[in-house]
Amino acid sequence: MPELRKDPITGTWVIISEERKKRPKYYQIVVDKDLSIPENCPFCPGNEAMTPPETFALRPGHSPANTPGWELRVVPNKFPALRVEGSLRKSGEGFYDKMNGIGAHEVLIETPRHQHTWFDGDAQVIRNTLLAAKARVLDLNKDTRFKYIMVFKNFGPTAGATLSHSHTQLIALPVVPLRVQEEIDGARAHFELKERCIFCDIIQYESEADRRLLAENEHFIVLAPYAPRFSFELAVYPKRHNPSFESTSDGELESLSSILSETLGKVAKLLNRPDYNLIIHNAPCSNSVGEYYHWHIEFMPVLARVAGFEWGTGFYINPISPEESVQSLKAV
Amino acid sequence: MPELRKDPITGTWVIISEERKKRPKYYQIVVDKDLSIPENCPFCPGNEAMTPPETFALRPGHSPANTPGWELRVVPNKFPALRVEGSLRKSGEGFYDKMNGIGAHEVLIETPRHQHTWFDGDAQVIRNTLLAAKARVLDLNKDTRFKYIMVFKNFGPTAGATLSHSHTQLIALPVVPLRVQEEIDGARAHFELKERCIFCDIIQYESEADRRLLAENEHFIVLAPYAPRFSFELAVYPKRHNPSFESTSDGELESLSSILSETLGKVAKLLNRPDYNLIIHNAPCSNSVGEYYHWHIEFMPVLARVAGFEWGTGFYINPISPEESVQSLKAV
Repeated sequence: MPELRKDPITGTWVIISEERKKRPKYYQIVVDKDLSIPENCPFCPGNEAMTPPETFALRPGHSPANTPGWELRVVPNKFPALRVEGSLRKSGEGFYDKMNGIGAHEVLIETPRHQHTWFDGDAQVIRNTLLAAKARVLDLNKDTRFKYIMVFKNFGPTAGATLSHSHTQLIALPVVPLRVQEEIDGARAHFELKERCIFCDIIQYESEADRRLLAENEHFIVLAPYAPRFSFELAVYPKRHNPSFESTSDGELESLSSILSETLGKVAKLLNRPDYNLIIHNAPCSNSVGEYYHWHIEFMPVLARVAGFEWGTGFYINPISPEESVQSLKAV
Repeated sequence: MPELRKDPITGTWVIISEERKKRPKYYQIVVDKDLSIPENCPFCPGNEAMTPPETFALRPGHSPANTPGWELRVVPNKFPALRVEGSLRKSGEGFYDKMNGIGAHEVLIETPRHQHTWFDGDAQVIRNTLLAAKARVLDLNKDTRFKYIMVFKNFGPTAGATLSHSHTQLIALPVVPLRVQEEIDGARAHFELKERCIFCDIIQYESEADRRLLAENEHFIVLAPYAPRFSFELAVYPKRHNPSFESTSDGELESLSSILSETLGKVAKLLNRPDYNLIIHNAPCSNSVGEYYHWHIEFMPVLARVAGFEWGTGFYINPISPEESVQSLKAV
């Protein structure tokens, strides 16, 4: 059973999950099959038996579950960081705090096409992924053991992806993570001072200033943050004040998929299809942050390494200003 | 001039330092010389002119500055993240906060031997490095523009080192970084509750429990933290309560260099000389945390990648428990 442990000084939670050690490529584990070949790929059509049974699928031809004929499949992670079975138990060791690793860890297999990527200009795959993520978040929200659900995408080996077939992940957690809580606390402090959502303020300021604005459509805006930790880091905000990703309408998600596809097309050309992490920053499950939190997407290409200085300080060195990165992306 | 920018939501500071773009290997910059060869290495004896003039050196034969004959040299970083010249100016853009990038960024070239590493069992090189770091911190502490000095070592390309010749870095900052402040706040909360240093409590508990204790000598203790973010993450604590690295006696640093050398020897054998980050967590310059902060070293081998989930949540998944990692290291 995985275990959640809390750092007694900083309050950071860590998942100790020995299950993950069995994962291909991790640590010193070697697999005897080449997973980059469709025949061996657990995410390819025909290989449905290589994954746990699906929790959701888009099947336009109404084919039976766990057989080919799908456009998108959601399955539990075969090497889950957390386990869905059991009830939440908190305990301790000496003056340390821990709890059992209750949670869900699912994989959204975004397309049957083994070689497809989000750089390929097909907004349909992105739209399907967003719709499936919304459906899964709505379903998992019903489970009162979960306090936070994170949807994220790792693309490429240097971004942490162990399989090349296009996929997104979802983790439901029994606690609200520290970094999310920091964002919420910062947004609340601004609201208490100004009675306005800080994200709405940023959207308005950036639209007017037009120094870091990359793209805009009916419902969404893409910009480089004022203080980006990484070169070419981008943020995508819904224009309408909305704390939670899952209350985004299907029409808005359509609009999001096209602006994401365009943005990734520019990134692909300028930075030669880099590995990247894409994270949906969402409100906690019990939505008590409605007035001041505003869901958004964080996009970070992997261009440089995080080194000792950044780990120790949480202080990032970025050699490219957001103004310059947006200018280069616009010029593509 | 580099610029410090503050994220308006989380309060994280970022250094935007276009200077760093010129650094070898960074982004798309290509260098025409192979820096892994001693003739081209700016840290090798005879190539002193390839670095800015030294700020400190150990020269047993009293040879002149910036010539061969040194055992260790400290020089300003040729591609500094921050600039030492000028006075600190805080300003803004709209509702954003920034300041000019005042600070120091130095490199400790630990040995004239191009191939040497801390895995090679020579405690003398580690001792020289610690003594030089202490001398530089004491000197930079006199500059009232600096609020925090961080000493850290990146070993190997995946840990962020751009040069292979053994070196340590030092950055003096005009603000206390957020992660350091979090550690200080956590330690203060414990002190207010218990009137005890939380680090002293951890040292006592771990010594008695002996579940995560790797090594111990007269002045230092090495253990795996209860909630490690990374596999084989280790922490080194001075046994004596002491907030600041620079008030460690030379005798204690001698003791530290031997326990570090032994520990790295075990890591080298078990994990095949991995790349790593080593960070000195020190009290801020104006030492107002004396009762509850306790300086220490964080050691993190680079074995897996940090992926989307960790970035978004600050929630880490570690597939190896600290109890298991200590057991494996002890068995070497």
